Amino acid sequence: MVKRIAILGSTGSIGKNAIRVIETLGPAYQIVALTAHSNIQLLAEQVRRYKPRFVAVTKKDCVEELRDLLGDSDVEILAGSEGLTEIAGLAEIDIVLAAVVGSAGLSPALAAAKCGKHLAIANKESLVIAGDLLMKTARENNSAVVPVDSEHSAIFQAMQAGKRNEIDRLILTASGGPFRTLSAEDMQTVTLEQALAHPIWSMGAKITIDSATMANKAFELIEARWLFDIPVGRIDILVHPESIIHSLVQFVDGSLIAQLGWPDMCLPIQYALTYPERVAGIATPVKLEQIGRLTFERPNMEKFRALSLGYDVAQAGGTMPAVFNAANEAAVEEFLAGRIKFVNIVELIEHCLNKHNKINKAGLDDILEADAWARKEVARKLKRPVNVKIL
Amino acid sequence: MVKRIAILGSTGSIGKNAIRVIETLGPAYQIVALTAHSNIQLLAEQVRRYKPRFVAVTKKDCVEELRDLLGDSDVEILAGSEGLTEIAGLAEIDIVLAAVVGSAGLSPALAAAKCGKHLAIANKESLVIAGDLLMKTARENNSAVVPVDSEHSAIFQAMQAGKRNEIDRLILTASGGPFRTLSAEDMQTVTLEQALAHPIWSMGAKITIDSATMANKAFELIEARWLFDIPVGRIDILVHPESIIHSLVQFVDGSLIAQLGWPDMCLPIQYALTYPERVAGIATPVKLEQIGRLTFERPNMEKFRALSLGYDVAQAGGTMPAVFNAANEAAVEEFLAGRIKFVNIVELIEHCLNKHNKINKAGLDDILEADAWARKEVARKLKRPVNVKIL
Repeated sequence: MVKRIAILGSTGSIGKNAIRVIETLGPAYQIVALTAHSNIQLLAEQVRRYKPRFVAVTKKDCVEELRDLLGDSDVEILAGSEGLTEIAGLAEIDIVLAAVVGSAGLSPALAAAKCGKHLAIANKESLVIAGDLLMKTARENNSAVVPVDSEHSAIFQAMQAGKRNEIDRLILTASGGPFRTLSAEDMQTVTLEQALAHPIWSMGAKITIDSATMANKAFELIEARWLFDIPVGRIDILVHPESIIHSLVQFVDGSLIAQLGWPDMCLPIQYALTYPERVAGIATPVKLEQIGRLTFERPNMEKFRALSLGYDVAQAGGTMPAVFNAANEAAVEEFLAGRIKFVNIVELIEHCLNKHNKINKAGLDDILEADAWARKEVARKLKRPVNVKIL
Repeated sequence: MVKRIAILGSTGSIGKNAIRVIETLGPAYQIVALTAHSNIQLLAEQVRRYKPRFVAVTKKDCVEELRDLLGDSDVEILAGSEGLTEIAGLAEIDIVLAAVVGSAGLSPALAAAKCGKHLAIANKESLVIAGDLLMKTARENNSAVVPVDSEHSAIFQAMQAGKRNEIDRLILTASGGPFRTLSAEDMQTVTLEQALAHPIWSMGAKITIDSATMANKAFELIEARWLFDIPVGRIDILVHPESIIHSLVQFVDGSLIAQLGWPDMCLPIQYALTYPERVAGIATPVKLEQIGRLTFERPNMEKFRALSLGYDVAQAGGTMPAVFNAANEAAVEEFLAGRIKFVNIVELIEHCLNKHNKINKAGLDDILEADAWARKEVARKLKRPVNVKIL
């Protein structure tokens, strides 16, 4: 039976790779919907090439541009974030790949879970800020949530070598980013260019900066906590600069199961789409004799303060992860615009976390409010005009 | 429900470790039968301590000694290899741990498979010389065959991250033994002492020598071929001196799944007993940050000629593996007795393989005959009195 796929965020890094993956998978996988925020040129190209039945543009003032570009194509065009959410729930869709960047990805992910879709989740924020809610919704509606992130995909795969209640610990590997070997002092003066030069992974700018601060690993910690329903005290972070072992599961008998692959998102994307099957695809297997050696070290929690904040936030729960995420997003935006220093990013996160009045049993509204509050707080702290994104 | 265990070969290295493992597993696992070849003192101690209902001594002239040592114990004493085979099929036994060393382990392993037992197989020879027959018998009688060898245990665990028909290749890791970095020339003059000094694993003398010649890896190749029903052309050998990754499975999508642990037989022994469950036991999990690095290299097939002979033999099938195994066993015995040089071991194996008239569709009798022939041929070649072991 043909699997009908919606790619939410098809013009981003994950979205583009997903299209390459689906091309190699052949006719058993069919692209039925594509969505983008504002990269209308590329979206139009993708629509002409893959002929989806539905397309959505979240930036509403770009809809007309798309309509013009597509001419008399018979694709159905939806607009705004509600367009995304509508697509995620369509009966014509079997698999939703949630690859929108940022907290705008939450609502469509929730919609897919509510409708019992096979949810390939690449949008980190859904799990970071509302992981409890998302996973609960998925369980209640028999939605299979399969992670796209290479680390969580590795854990998801490795977990299958035992039963859920036989898992002792999860070990998230981290490349350590571009500043792994830098002194804390030298980190005070790193440039945007240095922060964007990731040694292993080629990714979007936002996530590359998150990798340099190691905030991405803090997010992954929180994601893993919800995805796998494991207390954060049983999740370790292991620095592994070569990024070949993508993560490990430690079972109660002391056995460790690891998943290995080249640092290439195509494999975890494919697995998230084809699970519970594995099929031949574009990924080439790792040859360990070519690599020669793999190295491992403890993460430096003092230097990468985002990591220890991540543990605190994951432990605290409630609205704290939403604040962590939103403060980071706002601060990284400032850094990418050249308006603050690299080290200010984590300082701003910590400032917001300290100032936030946590709500413990947080519903969706509380989460979105905390998100907006943190963005405003970053702006206030930096004395910028307060210009909060609408989720 | 209590699992009732027979340990065939309880005084050997695997047998003793198995007893330690079962002690930590608590009352859910009960030792119901113990057997040994000639270490009667230790066997008697084990019987007094663990109070099995059955005990067998394969060396018949040792039975009286055991009877004297045990006095008026109410254990039932069986004698000879037929005693082992009888125990393997007893209705009072759920799990048979086949840890006899050498081809004498074949008949009881076959008996266990015939009776549909959970068969934890540590006896390499059963799979090397009669793997096809053993696995067929197991399949026909719903006997779960779970490997004890660390490499095969790793593959068995890693395989669970996918379906059988999704496996692309198996990657058997090898420590490389004590002579990994030695030149081919220096290998001509190594002493018995050097060959017995394995860098990683503490094992019996026979298997330590097999590890030095890498004949053990050739055996594991043949074992894997039958255990996992994979053509030998899809099994690779990877040298990994630290012996932390115990082996890997490569799936069709390019994903690699590995199992890791300290080089300690307790973990694979426990897993073979408790499968399909995992329970807390005596194994401590590996800490990769403590190890720091893992290294990998291609095996040197010219220097370790036993490896390439292993591929040939696995490909040839029929009675060839039995000849390989028996010639090796006889040659290692000569080496351990100080009567031949280290390099003569593989030369003798090759001599026998070249001289043997292969039988393709080999039944048990053909296999046992080929085994006996090869032992005689080694003796003949060395101009020793022909003194063939009775299986």
